[in-house]
Amino acid sequence: MERINHIIAGIKPLDESAMGEARMRQDNLTKPQGSLGQLEAISIQVAGIKGSPRPRISHKVIFVLAGDHGVAKEGVSAYPSEVTPQMVSNFLRGGAGINVLARHVGSRVVIADMGVASVLEPHPDLKAKKVAMGTRNMAKGPAMSREQAIRSIEAGIELVEEELPKEVDILGTGDMGIGNTTPSSAITAAITGADVATVTGRGTGLDDEGQRRKVGVIEKVLEINQPDPKDAIEVLSKVGGFEIGGIAGVILAGARYRIPVVIDGFISGAAALVATSLSPAVKPHLIASHQSVEQGHRIVLKHLGLKPLLNLDLRLGEGTGAALGIFLVEASVKILDEMATFADAGVSKKI
Amino acid sequence: MERINHIIAGIKPLDESAMGEARMRQDNLTKPQGSLGQLEAISIQVAGIKGSPRPRISHKVIFVLAGDHGVAKEGVSAYPSEVTPQMVSNFLRGGAGINVLARHVGSRVVIADMGVASVLEPHPDLKAKKVAMGTRNMAKGPAMSREQAIRSIEAGIELVEEELPKEVDILGTGDMGIGNTTPSSAITAAITGADVATVTGRGTGLDDEGQRRKVGVIEKVLEINQPDPKDAIEVLSKVGGFEIGGIAGVILAGARYRIPVVIDGFISGAAALVATSLSPAVKPHLIASHQSVEQGHRIVLKHLGLKPLLNLDLRLGEGTGAALGIFLVEASVKILDEMATFADAGVSKKI
Repeated sequence: MERINHIIAGIKPLDESAMGEARMRQDNLTKPQGSLGQLEAISIQVAGIKGSPRPRISHKVIFVLAGDHGVAKEGVSAYPSEVTPQMVSNFLRGGAGINVLARHVGSRVVIADMGVASVLEPHPDLKAKKVAMGTRNMAKGPAMSREQAIRSIEAGIELVEEELPKEVDILGTGDMGIGNTTPSSAITAAITGADVATVTGRGTGLDDEGQRRKVGVIEKVLEINQPDPKDAIEVLSKVGGFEIGGIAGVILAGARYRIPVVIDGFISGAAALVATSLSPAVKPHLIASHQSVEQGHRIVLKHLGLKPLLNLDLRLGEGTGAALGIFLVEASVKILDEMATFADAGVSKKI
Repeated sequence: MERINHIIAGIKPLDESAMGEARMRQDNLTKPQGSLGQLEAISIQVAGIKGSPRPRISHKVIFVLAGDHGVAKEGVSAYPSEVTPQMVSNFLRGGAGINVLARHVGSRVVIADMGVASVLEPHPDLKAKKVAMGTRNMAKGPAMSREQAIRSIEAGIELVEEELPKEVDILGTGDMGIGNTTPSSAITAAITGADVATVTGRGTGLDDEGQRRKVGVIEKVLEINQPDPKDAIEVLSKVGGFEIGGIAGVILAGARYRIPVVIDGFISGAAALVATSLSPAVKPHLIASHQSVEQGHRIVLKHLGLKPLLNLDLRLGEGTGAALGIFLVEASVKILDEMATFADAGVSKKI
């Protein structure tokens, strides 16, 4: 836990001076003030995160963390657990949605085994961070030990630190794990206090009956485990997942190293709840890429006070929404950096 | 008018067979069916427009059309008319918002003088299509003659046809013209039948009093001109603008040449109302890039039956929203073309 505490101690508030300069520049660019809406606000936020009035983004990284879930045995997913390692192979071959979109936005992809329930062959592009062979079935007891929860967060921090030598100007988060909307709903209910039914969706495609069963399972999970909402490590250990802990670590490290953190959908959102519970200073470093179809995501974003950039009815995960969000953040800083001012261009200002 | 009628006669319905193949492929890609939401739907639409089950997009063009408005004399804009030619110069030097975003998405930009109220110096990158030195003040009579309205649409068609030899896989529309939300509101009220107050916003930044004055001006414009809502050429000539007619021509030509047409905000939306009034067969070729802050835009999109891809509180125009929309359309066809199928990747399907 010292490592996590050390990272948290290093998280600074946004640089108000850089933000002030960025805001002044936005107001002098050749466009009506405020006419680029959220893009202007995001560029100013990034200026504050990076401590630069005209930040640039070249090196982009999307972290895709995979893990399995013992609770999948309760029939909470439309897909079998074997899909988790199959999709990791798909990521490594470049055939998944996140590979396509990362190429489209010019981002590296870092794939990590945080706790897939099978032995994955070593691969030069696969980060071996396995905490265990999947979580235990949290419908019968804690998903993992407290030590494993801490280890999963530390592994996420390591993933970011290992990329720093290759430079990281912005990062996105992503997940893969059959059954992982279930711990995400459980975490969201535990931390925000929302009803289980309001934070539980269809995941990869449950029907009405499946969704009702999933609500029942999550109610049982919370009843059995009774996580203390004030103790994020306890919430993660009792009702979380290894990839969720890892993403929380990626988020903490992003905030610590002044890297804008573009969070994906519901699973990344649950990880952000864990990270911001550990340190509220994380919040200003977060950018919500999109509003997921998964109904609990709305409650996560409200709790985090974030307005999503996109609302395209996505529910794939893997960091696909984050990839699209990274493109928009990059657009925002290019506007700030590259547009001419009224003075530069000899354009008349408002009457 | 024969040229316009000839283009309209060449507009075909979407290719159902290509769409069926694209839909089947989407359903076999390694993701839960439908999990990429609007991106899946857009890729299938593009397949239908292009008549190819796996369309590709390399050559992108954003058409930015400029014109001035006699009605600006009525105090309907926060900026003086001299800004129109100043911004055209800014476009030609690459310093405007659309230049930055077009570079970001790898798109060419075609800039056209459709009717700026000053003599613009010739420039290799400026298309000289001036119909007149700005429209007349439509608060006192028709904005232009019927012949000028037809000419403006024909000029828009020419702009697209002149780009065809350099290839155009997708196009975006954009506008520049101080005062042009006023004709856009007038066109929207005339064609959709909506109240003037509900389709009239703050443009580049009017205050409450300015907005009230603008509503009064537009009510007077419609009272004096009485455009026949069934006759789109009459609506354009009485209460339109040269860049709006030009954009309508760009849209018609895009539909005719099976090029997906990504429309920008409110001004492009008003042009789309004109184009779809001339030929309802245009509609399936349109993609709405974003929901503008300008309040009449919501009514335009509803009338067109379009769901916008983005909602970032943009209100700049110039095709800036279209540029971002083009990026998302490109993402959608890359997903369709590049992702592995379940069979390719050896991934298990739904239980």
